[in-house]
Amino acid sequence: MSTPKILILGAGYGGLLTALQLQKKLNYNEADVTLVNKHTYHYITTWLHEPAAGTAPADHARVELDGIIDKSKINFLKGVVESIQPDEQTVTLKDKRVLSYDYLVIGLGSEPETFGIEGLKEHAFSIRSINAVRQIREHIEYMFAKYKNEPERTEYLTIVIGGAGFTGIEFSGEVADRIPELCKEFDVDPSLVKVYNIEAAPTALPGFDKELVDYAMDVLTRKGIQFRINTPIKQCTPEGVILATGEEIKAGTVVWTGGVRGNSIVEKSGFEVMRGRVKVDEYLRAPGYDNVFVVGDCALIFNDQGRPYPPTAQIAVQEGENCGSNLVALIRNDKMTPFVPALQGTLASLGKGEGIGIVGQKKVFGSTAALLKKGSDLRYLYKIGGVGLALKKVRL
Amino acid sequence: MSTPKILILGAGYGGLLTALQLQKKLNYNEADVTLVNKHTYHYITTWLHEPAAGTAPADHARVELDGIIDKSKINFLKGVVESIQPDEQTVTLKDKRVLSYDYLVIGLGSEPETFGIEGLKEHAFSIRSINAVRQIREHIEYMFAKYKNEPERTEYLTIVIGGAGFTGIEFSGEVADRIPELCKEFDVDPSLVKVYNIEAAPTALPGFDKELVDYAMDVLTRKGIQFRINTPIKQCTPEGVILATGEEIKAGTVVWTGGVRGNSIVEKSGFEVMRGRVKVDEYLRAPGYDNVFVVGDCALIFNDQGRPYPPTAQIAVQEGENCGSNLVALIRNDKMTPFVPALQGTLASLGKGEGIGIVGQKKVFGSTAALLKKGSDLRYLYKIGGVGLALKKVRL
Repeated sequence: MSTPKILILGAGYGGLLTALQLQKKLNYNEADVTLVNKHTYHYITTWLHEPAAGTAPADHARVELDGIIDKSKINFLKGVVESIQPDEQTVTLKDKRVLSYDYLVIGLGSEPETFGIEGLKEHAFSIRSINAVRQIREHIEYMFAKYKNEPERTEYLTIVIGGAGFTGIEFSGEVADRIPELCKEFDVDPSLVKVYNIEAAPTALPGFDKELVDYAMDVLTRKGIQFRINTPIKQCTPEGVILATGEEIKAGTVVWTGGVRGNSIVEKSGFEVMRGRVKVDEYLRAPGYDNVFVVGDCALIFNDQGRPYPPTAQIAVQEGENCGSNLVALIRNDKMTPFVPALQGTLASLGKGEGIGIVGQKKVFGSTAALLKKGSDLRYLYKIGGVGLALKKVRL
Repeated sequence: MSTPKILILGAGYGGLLTALQLQKKLNYNEADVTLVNKHTYHYITTWLHEPAAGTAPADHARVELDGIIDKSKINFLKGVVESIQPDEQTVTLKDKRVLSYDYLVIGLGSEPETFGIEGLKEHAFSIRSINAVRQIREHIEYMFAKYKNEPERTEYLTIVIGGAGFTGIEFSGEVADRIPELCKEFDVDPSLVKVYNIEAAPTALPGFDKELVDYAMDVLTRKGIQFRINTPIKQCTPEGVILATGEEIKAGTVVWTGGVRGNSIVEKSGFEVMRGRVKVDEYLRAPGYDNVFVVGDCALIFNDQGRPYPPTAQIAVQEGENCGSNLVALIRNDKMTPFVPALQGTLASLGKGEGIGIVGQKKVFGSTAALLKKGSDLRYLYKIGGVGLALKKVRL
């Protein structure tokens, strides 16, 4: 019998945690594990709103895989996945290399969901990778620099944030913190800078506790964010956005945080999807393919009330750990464990020292929430890289 | 007899030094002196290549006028000059305020001379103000950030510097120093970054000692600058430049340093000019107007061989001091002193710790030249703001 080949696509939360679980549990030569990723680093997606606004360097949000992957147990391959052929049990990379597998783990993450809104794909930025957020930060700075040379173009100083979900709200908090720094650096009158957060749903943070939503909007409004809730964006243009009300907001920068869908490679490879996500079985397997696992934003799972869980880092981490353990079980002909999410709460930052959240059944606000979020971030870093990584990345 | 009104336009080297000389020599109420400037600060034009490349913050190159102007002797007016009416003895500002004067000092500086090269004005940056250089720095950074999201567009990483005069050479040195930092920040392979310095004349630094020119080109070539000497630029496009040879260099950033002319306001106001500069008399006065002095880049003066002096900070400073003294003489019915430049040498930086120059009759190279340049900069700071300013700005 030959050594089983496990191929993991993507080193985001789901793929990385699968790999780390295998690294921990597998004996030498028990399996041939390969992790394919576009970059040599993992990034902490839930922190990307900080470098996007420029309140933290981009490097802060990434972790070199070299430091956390044990290369004697996991082969690392830098490459971009182009397609999956599940019937042939192969994966093709952009550079035309073909990889074969016995077991596949798809952790290819998400892409922006633009809901068919015209021009969003072309003219709005998304908070979706280290490279993308570096461009957002540089774009905002460039707009401030341009304004100083064309002082009649005050719209260069306007930032539109589409979406008041978690990413939109957290990014709004960081942008609000960043504006005074930018105004100082570029000698810009702060009263000329406008930041709009525009949300189509009847409330910010849809589905979240009303008292927490009110607190968040109050904090951000006091920081200067202008909310337009219950106001769909009809179109994004090179000049800004046009709202369903007909109002046009001219803006030098538009950042879309309104939603994500699963990576389109999954659908293109023939898997059945809903908004790009594969409705997986209780072991996170794709329908019809017992050897294909899907984790993170590409996986669709439902709660007891039949409603889909939102794609979060928390669930992706748990899925990765479950998937890694189940792969070990499969190889050893043990019994697999069904995946059941254990939700520990939700925390959102609202800029420096401010936040909201629910931990267990308890609502938390302000600096308590901000501190608990730091604690939760530290636990994640400790999990993937030990105490060394946690200490290196902590910012209090 | 009423108090004579002296109006100084511009707080560059020429205008500022005129004002400081008046501040030093005039008794209280001997004249009513007003200094008009676009900004509340003076900037050190000869340092602007540093913030343009991003090797120093923009604030380093500017000095708030508040700290060096004695407001009990000089009225400061923030405003933009629109036109001069020398026959009416008035100046009109952009905001339509009209200022009258008995004596006028024009120190309105320069603007880029594009020699009719198509597209330069529209598509190339110029190193000409704090706001302009902040945009150059941000533009270069933005191009690096964009490249990371469109990795096939390597031309985003190309910088074309038009002109190998002093500014072009000094900027090339700073850009060469900055590239490794940018590559590190944005994870860019340094071998993909190209910096071209393109000069139409048969040599870099035309008119300068050949041994020094060779040294400068050698240092910069080793730092990665690619020179195209004796190669005119035919056209600048949104995509880069087209050379007279027909060769196209695609570039994300084009910075034009190829020459300056006097501020066009002077010509538009009816003064007779050559390339925007007024051929002044021995007391720096405009022909036909005994009460209008011209200093700095708007003034054209000739040496004994009948060749025009290049517009430099050194000469502008001396002109300002001469003009201030002569204004005091005029008011006191004393004799004016003809302006004779006292050239102390020329120093150019080639990036950190490198330079060339002539001091007296002696050629200087490398770290000696760089150190002498710092010394010369410090003397200027000491002159305008005393030891406090010199110590605040020193960077060794």
